[in-house]
Amino acid sequence: SVRRKRGEVSNALRQVVLCKDTACKIGLRVKAVNKGVFVCLVTKGSPAALGGLRFGDQILQVNGVNLAGYSSDKAHEILKKASENNVVMVVRDRPFERAVTLHKDSAGLVGFEIRDGKIVTIAVNSSAARNGLLIEHNLLEVNGQNVVGVKDKEIGTIIQDGGNVITVTIIPSLIYDH
Amino acid sequence: SVRRKRGEVSNALRQVVLCKDTACKIGLRVKAVNKGVFVCLVTKGSPAALGGLRFGDQILQVNGVNLAGYSSDKAHEILKKASENNVVMVVRDRPFERAVTLHKDSAGLVGFEIRDGKIVTIAVNSSAARNGLLIEHNLLEVNGQNVVGVKDKEIGTIIQDGGNVITVTIIPSLIYDH
Repeated sequence: SVRRKRGEVSNALRQVVLCKDTACKIGLRVKAVNKGVFVCLVTKGSPAALGGLRFGDQILQVNGVNLAGYSSDKAHEILKKASENNVVMVVRDRPFERAVTLHKDSAGLVGFEIRDGKIVTIAVNSSAARNGLLIEHNLLEVNGQNVVGVKDKEIGTIIQDGGNVITVTIIPSLIYDH
Repeated sequence: SVRRKRGEVSNALRQVVLCKDTACKIGLRVKAVNKGVFVCLVTKGSPAALGGLRFGDQILQVNGVNLAGYSSDKAHEILKKASENNVVMVVRDRPFERAVTLHKDSAGLVGFEIRDGKIVTIAVNSSAARNGLLIEHNLLEVNGQNVVGVKDKEIGTIIQDGGNVITVTIIPSLIYDH
């Protein structure tokens, strides 16, 4: 598994070597966006999850085949046809991810509201406003903790319990919803 | 003026202090996107250009006023009303910018085509494909040189003359065209 600093955004390239599970699955679904192939679902505890793949990662290569221009169906087929062991992938860490650091005000608020993980409101004169947080973005992490697929109420608790400085990593909803 | 390394992407916050020109202009046009205010035009040689403002920068504050949620008209009004001297802005460096490094093949190609500065084709098995360059993105810089507003043919020459390693900085066309 890959270790990262809290809220770190690298956009780096890396190689991931996976072995399929006993059901011959990797635990990954992808979407094609702008001629790139992106991770849109990672099954908990799957080989993909254990290999450190995350929602929003761009898969560049599988076993030496460049996926640029592939449809999601064609990419799924490549993954399905790959041998059980040594599925070698080249991955770019979440190219659309950004980190924004916020500070709580005296009421303990950072100044944004979410609906289904998507930022829908920025409060006037809040830390979110001062730091240029944007709507039409989805939360990926809060203080380095994954919040993809986490309920809004739980995310609220994570922020509440997260101390005075909150680093959120976000991705444009356009990529998220595509 | 601000100095940056070739292809550097910081997304940092900075303060810019401008004085209007003799016509009482700053040389800046902005657009509102997702409740943020973004630079969409910088006039050559203007106070904004001399202050290092660039296409794609997010303007967070003008003279202490947070612009979050402002329309472009309202933001232009704030700029127009500002005193001639000491227009103090807080700016986030191009939050949607990313850098991708490409290597020329034996034919001297990096593997993408542009139309009006927008990436429209990724060549199969090219450096662009291997590095995950995407269509629906506009070029901002080539090897640290601004190409916003530069003609496709000229951009081609810059790439051709740019050596074997080409760093492009790009922005989603969605933000660009908005």
